[in-house]
Amino acid sequence: MAEKPAPSDKNFTIMTREQLIQQIRSRKSYLCVGLDTDLQKVPSHLLSAQDPVFEFNKQIIDATAEYCVSYKLNTAFYEAMGLRGWQSMEKTVNYIPSTHLKIADAKRGDIGNTASQYAKAFFETLTFDAITVAPYMGEDSVRPFLEYKNKWTILLGLTSNSGSKDFEMLKVNDEDYLFETVMKTASTWGTADNLMFVVGATQTDMFDRIRNLIPAHFFLVPGIGAQGGSLKDISLKAMNPEIGLLVNSSRAIIYASYEKNFAEKAGEVAREYQVEMSSYI
Amino acid sequence: MAEKPAPSDKNFTIMTREQLIQQIRSRKSYLCVGLDTDLQKVPSHLLSAQDPVFEFNKQIIDATAEYCVSYKLNTAFYEAMGLRGWQSMEKTVNYIPSTHLKIADAKRGDIGNTASQYAKAFFETLTFDAITVAPYMGEDSVRPFLEYKNKWTILLGLTSNSGSKDFEMLKVNDEDYLFETVMKTASTWGTADNLMFVVGATQTDMFDRIRNLIPAHFFLVPGIGAQGGSLKDISLKAMNPEIGLLVNSSRAIIYASYEKNFAEKAGEVAREYQVEMSSYI
Repeated sequence: MAEKPAPSDKNFTIMTREQLIQQIRSRKSYLCVGLDTDLQKVPSHLLSAQDPVFEFNKQIIDATAEYCVSYKLNTAFYEAMGLRGWQSMEKTVNYIPSTHLKIADAKRGDIGNTASQYAKAFFETLTFDAITVAPYMGEDSVRPFLEYKNKWTILLGLTSNSGSKDFEMLKVNDEDYLFETVMKTASTWGTADNLMFVVGATQTDMFDRIRNLIPAHFFLVPGIGAQGGSLKDISLKAMNPEIGLLVNSSRAIIYASYEKNFAEKAGEVAREYQVEMSSYI
Repeated sequence: MAEKPAPSDKNFTIMTREQLIQQIRSRKSYLCVGLDTDLQKVPSHLLSAQDPVFEFNKQIIDATAEYCVSYKLNTAFYEAMGLRGWQSMEKTVNYIPSTHLKIADAKRGDIGNTASQYAKAFFETLTFDAITVAPYMGEDSVRPFLEYKNKWTILLGLTSNSGSKDFEMLKVNDEDYLFETVMKTASTWGTADNLMFVVGATQTDMFDRIRNLIPAHFFLVPGIGAQGGSLKDISLKAMNPEIGLLVNSSRAIIYASYEKNFAEKAGEVAREYQVEMSSYI
């Protein structure tokens, strides 16, 4: 991949679709590691560090980088720690190698004027490459994110949780599920070069249907591991000719061990995913 | 109102439904002031202050507190400023008098495990009384907020922006609009004592219908002022016997002037709203 750090800012990187696909092919992996770091689960020997959450993330990144192509930070875990958490998030995103797609799993969504402020927060103040966005409020709540050149918007489609049945799977206009209408409509707002969709790994029955509907876009797929989704099912049903998948695992990797060897164990689990993924590519 | 600061924490307050109604009746106001503070719009004489955003908010609060019953901070504006913004938000929420409902306009929504972290962020790490939440991901994404005793969850119903037409107003199950199904379903998850709904002031045509559907719950109503909604229309159509409304104005109040007299002008605009509101109560 051609790295393009802007001369004026060491943290400025871009990750185009072509670059992402090249990373996936060269690493034979479409793994995203979820850094949903909870201070209460950080091994005790790290608690004396100046910033235990950052120290934990740093060691996880060092141990897993060769097996994955992306890191995803769920903002909830950092905001729960207040100012300190925001600082750990900032340090972590700056530490992630420019070869890896940096995703803010923030699920933001607000009126246009306000969505612009969120885009600024995650694409300028913090240097993420991508952000997850909630669709409920419609086009003007999504548009400000899509306006950033070389940044990615990842819209919620069909999520992995039990609550996905409540609204996402309602039949709308007597025809499609709501999530299908959301994905079809939103796919006209952006392109496969700046828009991805979240599709939960637990939604196996829907994968064929969704890939038929949205052939070209990348899917960010959470829900394997702790939430029970199958990597095999997703890979066989939802991969497209350009791979088109980023499969996330958080807890199964970062909490593979609570002991001093946590990073080594995280690396081993990430490697297992990578080996399995290489068999599907 | 009976203030109930817990002895161990000066910032701990509660605002029950009864207390909120009492505040509204005694102040003859159901105004919420939106502190969507953008550093680029802060009057220049404040820019030398140690924390210009907090200094701005402090003066706005001092000038408007007697005319309103609530303050709402949209988190996007603070997150756009990174660590400094998070600090300004923390100081501002601690400065708001315990007589006023403190709302985090955060529109969060994630799977249960993660939603709990957001609830912790805004109800424990920060000491808000209420948070706005997005409905797309369904019950388990909302439940963790409702589990906090004496805290409020404010769910998006029908929003004020143009994008509300894209999905919120789709017909579901060949019958209701999506936003109606969301509001009806979610009203069974909480009660009028811990759950409110966002209903945009620009949605005048829908107010009768929504109030018939959800008679008892409070509505948080953004969209008057800069977005064009009418205070009179909302008040006549959506007030219930216990008032049941919090009407928000942000830009029209906090940016009433960009000069040294900004706080005084903000107070004047807030007072005008209060006088008009008193005529509808």
